[in-house]
Amino acid sequence: MNDDKIELPKDSPNGRVETQYFNFDSLLLESSEILSPVTIAYETYGKLNEKKDNAILLCHALSGDAHLAGISKEDGKLGWWEFMIGPGRAFDTDKYFIIGSNVLGGCKGSTGPSSVNPVTNKPYGSDFPEITIRDMVNAQVKLIENMGIQKLFSIAGGSMGGMQVIEWTYSHPEKVATAIPIATTFHHSAQQIAFNEVGRISIMNDPDWSGGDYYDKKPPVNGLSIARMIGHITYMSDDSMKEKFGRRTRSAGKDGKKLNTGFEVESYLRYQGEAFVKRFDANTYICVTKAIDFFDAGDNKDLIKHYYDTDIKFLVISYSHDWIYPPYQSKEIVKVLKFAQADVTYCDISKSYGHDAFLIPHEEQGLLIGNFLNNNYNKYISSVRSNIKQ
Amino acid sequence: MNDDKIELPKDSPNGRVETQYFNFDSLLLESSEILSPVTIAYETYGKLNEKKDNAILLCHALSGDAHLAGISKEDGKLGWWEFMIGPGRAFDTDKYFIIGSNVLGGCKGSTGPSSVNPVTNKPYGSDFPEITIRDMVNAQVKLIENMGIQKLFSIAGGSMGGMQVIEWTYSHPEKVATAIPIATTFHHSAQQIAFNEVGRISIMNDPDWSGGDYYDKKPPVNGLSIARMIGHITYMSDDSMKEKFGRRTRSAGKDGKKLNTGFEVESYLRYQGEAFVKRFDANTYICVTKAIDFFDAGDNKDLIKHYYDTDIKFLVISYSHDWIYPPYQSKEIVKVLKFAQADVTYCDISKSYGHDAFLIPHEEQGLLIGNFLNNNYNKYISSVRSNIKQ
Repeated sequence: MNDDKIELPKDSPNGRVETQYFNFDSLLLESSEILSPVTIAYETYGKLNEKKDNAILLCHALSGDAHLAGISKEDGKLGWWEFMIGPGRAFDTDKYFIIGSNVLGGCKGSTGPSSVNPVTNKPYGSDFPEITIRDMVNAQVKLIENMGIQKLFSIAGGSMGGMQVIEWTYSHPEKVATAIPIATTFHHSAQQIAFNEVGRISIMNDPDWSGGDYYDKKPPVNGLSIARMIGHITYMSDDSMKEKFGRRTRSAGKDGKKLNTGFEVESYLRYQGEAFVKRFDANTYICVTKAIDFFDAGDNKDLIKHYYDTDIKFLVISYSHDWIYPPYQSKEIVKVLKFAQADVTYCDISKSYGHDAFLIPHEEQGLLIGNFLNNNYNKYISSVRSNIKQ
Repeated sequence: MNDDKIELPKDSPNGRVETQYFNFDSLLLESSEILSPVTIAYETYGKLNEKKDNAILLCHALSGDAHLAGISKEDGKLGWWEFMIGPGRAFDTDKYFIIGSNVLGGCKGSTGPSSVNPVTNKPYGSDFPEITIRDMVNAQVKLIENMGIQKLFSIAGGSMGGMQVIEWTYSHPEKVATAIPIATTFHHSAQQIAFNEVGRISIMNDPDWSGGDYYDKKPPVNGLSIARMIGHITYMSDDSMKEKFGRRTRSAGKDGKKLNTGFEVESYLRYQGEAFVKRFDANTYICVTKAIDFFDAGDNKDLIKHYYDTDIKFLVISYSHDWIYPPYQSKEIVKVLKFAQADVTYCDISKSYGHDAFLIPHEEQGLLIGNFLNNNYNKYISSVRSNIKQ
């Protein structure tokens, strides 16, 4: 999800959408701490049918939120996966009930470091507990159960969203019929950790970070914008940057010195950094990237045993030019699932875009996912409903 | 050149070496400004023969210096290309006279932003002029001419050093017999510019940078260390980081929280950042990365015309796992030179190391370069000396 200055459409087949809030008393975290109370921000599209067997949960990546599609009633912005959701689109709202929620630890309505700590009546800041991908999923489980949904027809997401998809299939296999992990991995490599770590150090080195307790002061915008710029470069590919900017320069600075001439890619990155700090919280950046880095589904041997003969049907998608979550990581997921005799389809989509390809409108992803869902839906509902009759 | 904690050998076949200083009155820069006076720090190894036709200039990358080999008399440190230089080594000091010099704009003895501006009697800081790769080479030309050398037998260097090699062959073809550009490019891609730019913004966002005039105050160590960490990740490969760190963690912090457990790669990066700021100047980082980003040898059509039928013999080397200066950029150099009917040999070395492979001891690079030089040296001196006789 980036902050490109794109002319937003005035309308969407998904209409105007309002974020809703689900509150529950407490959540036992993987760290053994208890977070209480908990709010999860969410949005829904389409209608939950009577049997409640047409629900699909879509999980967002690091900088995403619950606002998947439609025009936000709050800020008028289009959802980050608009092109994938709606009547006749891949996540077809004429058939499916689509749910998006902001992750635990987030800063878009769900409980996170910027939420008020009921003990102190101030934002948590440095007191916010460690959050894991499992904790995020456990909060989503509560949200789904509260809606009366026993089992999701599908769950999908890219990048960190894909980690949540994997965690759902790992820890709650009975609650998932089909799963679509996109551009993701069973665990971060040292290189992936390293890029996140430099982002975190950049925030924590910013004097305005104040150890995480900056909510009554100027936030660490410098550090966060650097973190975002680093991230942004990793989300693009060498080729997509070449297409977008090449070596084009912008006009010279006031004194006409060449040094004051900037490359277009520079001002683009600066803009991305500046736009990001207006919409994102630095402590959430630290909290969520830590969750990503510590996510580890397990080693292949254990994973094969764990997934052996699973009923879940998988569609694994990678992007050929994604160098930060390279296709070999998706192939590793496919290999494990194949060894586990799972029903898995794999597709590597050849696009010049990098990691953020799954967020950029193109035909292939929608077709692959739409067909995968359609092929499985009728089989799924007939099997579920015949089970109920028995 | 990194700051790995490696046990330094107590001795070197190159013995103890002292940095020398060449001063000259002024240099007309590409920006049309005049820098005056100019100092170039340099070191030499082996002996310049009577005919002065056995000289090889080795050019350093972003963070390097004139101290190529041997034990520094100043700080006891081993040179950054020690394994390549010495009796019987690739750059054989029994045969060749090896020269290393710190680039113009540097902070290791050559005139740069931290040097005293004679106009103000204070360090240049924000007043230091823009420097280009061409300016760096023009200063090296003066150094070489001052030694009475009409023509270099060879010139070699990796990364930014390779850009200097290209610039020598482009602007001073009559002064170069053979050239070895390693892991380099005719011009930076948008991705390469972007990584440098985030490093520069990180420095310039640091309040301690003070617009570049920090020499009587605390320098921008936070910003510079982030820039270095970003750079360092790009110099390694996914594979080499995996081999070096994997997902290994270090012991938990005081409160035993998992968040306070760090991955090994994190503390390594922090160490690299901290070590770097002790030995490098932030303004030089900005000045030299700008020179790198603005370097542009030209488009292929013009380059082919320019190099047509050149007498210079080239050895182009790339590294298979170098993703920041990927082999396709070296192949582009080879293609242009082949179209120009130049004598060019290309080798891509398969190593799991990334961009910094040329700085890490391994056999192939030394063998390739040693053989290339040996094969050409006798032909070269006999042709030069027969020309002189005529």
